[in-house]
Amino acid sequence: MSRLKRGAILVLSGPSGAGKSTIINAAAPEIGEYYFSISTTTRAPREGEQHGREYFFVTKEEFEEDIKAGNFLEYAQVHGNYYGTSLKPVREALEAGKLVIFDIDVQGHRLVRAKMNDITTSAFITPPTLRELENRLRARSTDSDEVITRRIENAKEEILALGEYDFTIINDSVEEAAKEFVIVAKAARLKQSREEEEAFIARWLQ
Amino acid sequence: MSRLKRGAILVLSGPSGAGKSTIINAAAPEIGEYYFSISTTTRAPREGEQHGREYFFVTKEEFEEDIKAGNFLEYAQVHGNYYGTSLKPVREALEAGKLVIFDIDVQGHRLVRAKMNDITTSAFITPPTLRELENRLRARSTDSDEVITRRIENAKEEILALGEYDFTIINDSVEEAAKEFVIVAKAARLKQSREEEEAFIARWLQ
Repeated sequence: MSRLKRGAILVLSGPSGAGKSTIINAAAPEIGEYYFSISTTTRAPREGEQHGREYFFVTKEEFEEDIKAGNFLEYAQVHGNYYGTSLKPVREALEAGKLVIFDIDVQGHRLVRAKMNDITTSAFITPPTLRELENRLRARSTDSDEVITRRIENAKEEILALGEYDFTIINDSVEEAAKEFVIVAKAARLKQSREEEEAFIARWLQ
Repeated sequence: MSRLKRGAILVLSGPSGAGKSTIINAAAPEIGEYYFSISTTTRAPREGEQHGREYFFVTKEEFEEDIKAGNFLEYAQVHGNYYGTSLKPVREALEAGKLVIFDIDVQGHRLVRAKMNDITTSAFITPPTLRELENRLRARSTDSDEVITRRIENAKEEILALGEYDFTIINDSVEEAAKEFVIVAKAARLKQSREEEEAFIARWLQ
C-alpha cells in the first residue's frame, strides 16, 4: 500500500562493532524521514556520551517506576544494568507516519515482535566473521579487554538468533551494506498494520 | 547477506485485471535477472495464447501423471481445470541464483509458503477498489459477462487473504505500483534459505 499512514518499525540487531551507525548514516539520504529510537538505561554514561543522544540516562529507581507504569515497549537487564525502549516517543513517531528504527538486542527484538509484529521488519547486521569483529573491537580501543571479551561472548550467542530476522546484512563493505540497508528500510516502510489492512479491505469491497 | 547464491522466490497474487504483468514489465529494468514461472494448465488456450509463453498447455492425463510423479511445487483445480507449477524449472532457476517470480492464487501462495517459506516473499497486487476492478475487466472486453462475474466473485474471496502476504501493492498508478514492486523484488532477493544461514553462522564462528 502506497501511502504510509501510521509508520512502521525497523529493528536492527547485531554485535557492538558491527557498524550499525555507520551503515545508517551512509544510507540516511536515501531512506527518507525516520525516528531513531533512543534507549533508556541505568548504566553510567561513558566519556563523550550525552543524555538524549546515545541514551536517556536514568536512575534504577526511575527505571523501575516506569516498568511498573507500563511505559516500556521492551526492556531487559544486561550485566546488571537496565536497558529499555519507552513507548511514548515510539507511538508519537508511528502516529506521525515515520519509520521508527531500533538498535536493540535479540531479546528486545523478540519483545517488539510479540507486541507489534505486523508493522515490524528486522535485520541482523554483522561483520563477516567473529575474527573480524574482534579485530574491530580491539582497533577502536575504547573498551577494556574484559568488556571486549564480554562483547565477543555475547556476539557468539546472538549470531545463533540470526534466523529470527527478516534480513541479514553482512558489513564487509560499508557501501554494499548501506545499499542493502536502503532496500530493507524502504521495504519496511511498505508494511501495514493489521488494522490498516482491514480498513483497506472494508473500503475495497464497498 | 549480499551475494545471493541459491535464488529466492517472489509470489504475486491478486485478481485478474490487477495489472500484474504491466507492473512487472514497468519494473523489469530495475529488478535484475529473474525467471518468471510459467504455470501448467489443462484449460484450453485462449486466442493469442502460446504454449510456453502464457502457460504450458497439457491434457488432463498428462497433468495427473505429473501429480503422481510429484512433479508439482503446487497445483489446484479451479473451475474444473488444473493449474500447477512444475518443480524442475523452478529448481533450476533457484540453483542459478535467480529470483523466481510466481503469478499464482491465494491457494498456491499457501502451498509455496508451506514448502519454501524461508526464501519466499509475497505481494498481493490489487486495483484500488472492487468497482475499479470491474470497470477494468469490462473495459478490456476479452471476457464474457459470465467470466467477469466469476472473476469478481473470486476477487471478493481472495482480497480477504491479503493479510497473509508480506506486502500489498495497490495499482492506482502504474508508476507508483512499479516503484513499490522494485523495492519488494530487491528485498526478496536478499532472503536467504535456512541452509545458507546455518552455513554462514558456522563459517562466522570459526
